[in-house]
Amino acid sequence: MLEMPGPFLLFLADVTDRSDAKTAFGLADWAPDRCIGQHRLPGCAVDCALPDMVPRDAVARGAQSIVIGVAPAGGALPDAWIPALLNAMDEGLHVISGLHQPLAAISALVEKSAQTGRRLIEIRAPTRNFPLATGQRRTGKRLLTVGTDCALGKKYTALAIHRAMAARGVDCDFRATGQTGLMLASAGVAIDAVVADFVAGAAEWLSPAADLEHWDLIEGQGALLHPAYAGVTLGLLHGSQPDFLVLCHDPTRTHLVDFPDFAIPTLDDAIMVYEKMARVTNPDARVVAISLNTSRLPPSSATDIVVQTQRQTGLICFDPMRGGIEELVDYMLESR
Amino acid sequence: MLEMPGPFLLFLADVTDRSDAKTAFGLADWAPDRCIGQHRLPGCAVDCALPDMVPRDAVARGAQSIVIGVAPAGGALPDAWIPALLNAMDEGLHVISGLHQPLAAISALVEKSAQTGRRLIEIRAPTRNFPLATGQRRTGKRLLTVGTDCALGKKYTALAIHRAMAARGVDCDFRATGQTGLMLASAGVAIDAVVADFVAGAAEWLSPAADLEHWDLIEGQGALLHPAYAGVTLGLLHGSQPDFLVLCHDPTRTHLVDFPDFAIPTLDDAIMVYEKMARVTNPDARVVAISLNTSRLPPSSATDIVVQTQRQTGLICFDPMRGGIEELVDYMLESR
Repeated sequence: MLEMPGPFLLFLADVTDRSDAKTAFGLADWAPDRCIGQHRLPGCAVDCALPDMVPRDAVARGAQSIVIGVAPAGGALPDAWIPALLNAMDEGLHVISGLHQPLAAISALVEKSAQTGRRLIEIRAPTRNFPLATGQRRTGKRLLTVGTDCALGKKYTALAIHRAMAARGVDCDFRATGQTGLMLASAGVAIDAVVADFVAGAAEWLSPAADLEHWDLIEGQGALLHPAYAGVTLGLLHGSQPDFLVLCHDPTRTHLVDFPDFAIPTLDDAIMVYEKMARVTNPDARVVAISLNTSRLPPSSATDIVVQTQRQTGLICFDPMRGGIEELVDYMLESR
Repeated sequence: MLEMPGPFLLFLADVTDRSDAKTAFGLADWAPDRCIGQHRLPGCAVDCALPDMVPRDAVARGAQSIVIGVAPAGGALPDAWIPALLNAMDEGLHVISGLHQPLAAISALVEKSAQTGRRLIEIRAPTRNFPLATGQRRTGKRLLTVGTDCALGKKYTALAIHRAMAARGVDCDFRATGQTGLMLASAGVAIDAVVADFVAGAAEWLSPAADLEHWDLIEGQGALLHPAYAGVTLGLLHGSQPDFLVLCHDPTRTHLVDFPDFAIPTLDDAIMVYEKMARVTNPDARVVAISLNTSRLPPSSATDIVVQTQRQTGLICFDPMRGGIEELVDYMLESR
């Protein structure tokens, strides 16, 4: 288990694009009771709908840590953010980060940690070595969320399925594979930070053999038809050996986020490729549902696109943030 | 450029299976002028056809380094091998390793290095950080070797194509992606040791934009329909954005090496999957040739299987160690 002293003050820094604040929104949406407020710098145009507060006020309300809730382009912490973090440590907060760049590489933070006793907690760095994958089948049932792109709902979908199954008393675990998921679950592995040779082995380790009726709900990463992240996606897919895949898709996107030269694959193409590759380690793997991120659409259009996608694919379709997930859970439980 | 003080004494330790000595055979076959001898411990059943010698004799003949030419199962150096390496350092040799496990983690070797001034040279550990992949097309021509399994000729095929093209005066580079290739080229990146998120970015870095007529001949890794290594293979495939793929295959294998539950994919299936995935970053990518590893067959059977595979696939077919590669080189040069 990861040590994550809470509750948290979410640091939004000066970002202007909601898609750069996935960690903050993930915590605010899925662990609201652990989020006391948000800390924004001048110029910040993102809002998690939490009270704005400076570190001193957050500490007065019980905050234990400031969480870097935003991902700067390139993964490196801008110098302009450091004074705010130093101030937070002076006020008594630990700093929690899921960035690739270690906080321990920033000397001002290291010095402040030594002075104040406040800790620099790195979520993404693997804390253990993983074995090579074996490909051996494991008992228990597994569902993996996958996507036509990054940043469109793979984590939210897995969390929503977990919440719906847990509410029915099903024996199940959410398996976190990214920094935000790890913060929510206080366990898991940031799969994209593992040495490449061991990604599938880390995924095997993450969802070990379990009771026959147990469900692992595994958070997907990246996308298989993506020029930068597909290798991570494939290692996770093979090591997870999922029985069921849920394909996440944003119907309003035409091109991959940050890759304007790359069109979003069609649902048919994505389903074909995911099933083909998943069957290397689980011959029964199949896409059983489409999770549609309709957050940019009005409710009536959202309903239309869900119905239309269901008709087109013949699969269970829903937006996990707008309900409709129970049909999938029924289907999963009937499949036992 | 990597510093690789040669010539070398190849350490074969006590391995009994030729497939565990890929590094030693790679150096003996492709850099024979840099290999003075082989050092075998009692029980060793592998032979690189080099003179057997102890470190003292190798030093007398000019050796500068002992190269760990074998990969122990699991990647960790057995304790039983360490006295031989300590003796080699006492006699004056540097130690060169391409294992995942760092030599610097073995205290006896570190102490001996401090005493003797002999260096512990780690080939596999990345010496720099790599950027995320961009997916942007680069000028120049690229060929990547891929396979139906691991350890069946991807490195040898790329090296053979490089040798044949260089002999014709073509502007070309062999791009190493594994520890043995790195030792041969004194440059490159051990792609399976890169943090997963950056594999495709490392592959982009490895074969930068070049003259329109320049060829990069990129060493493949792993296999795309493999339960343990496919993620590495896919990141390398996407980042390399190859124009041409050469599919390497051992016609005598029925199952993946070390994975007896996994059948070797058919050539048709492998071609389909490699082309499908390669076209994410290069829509013109295609498999143009099959490189057959016929080392376990007598010459007449080898010829038969080459002819039969050519008929079956309609592609250029050859065993690079038995000639026939010129047809591929002709085809590559005509394609400009």
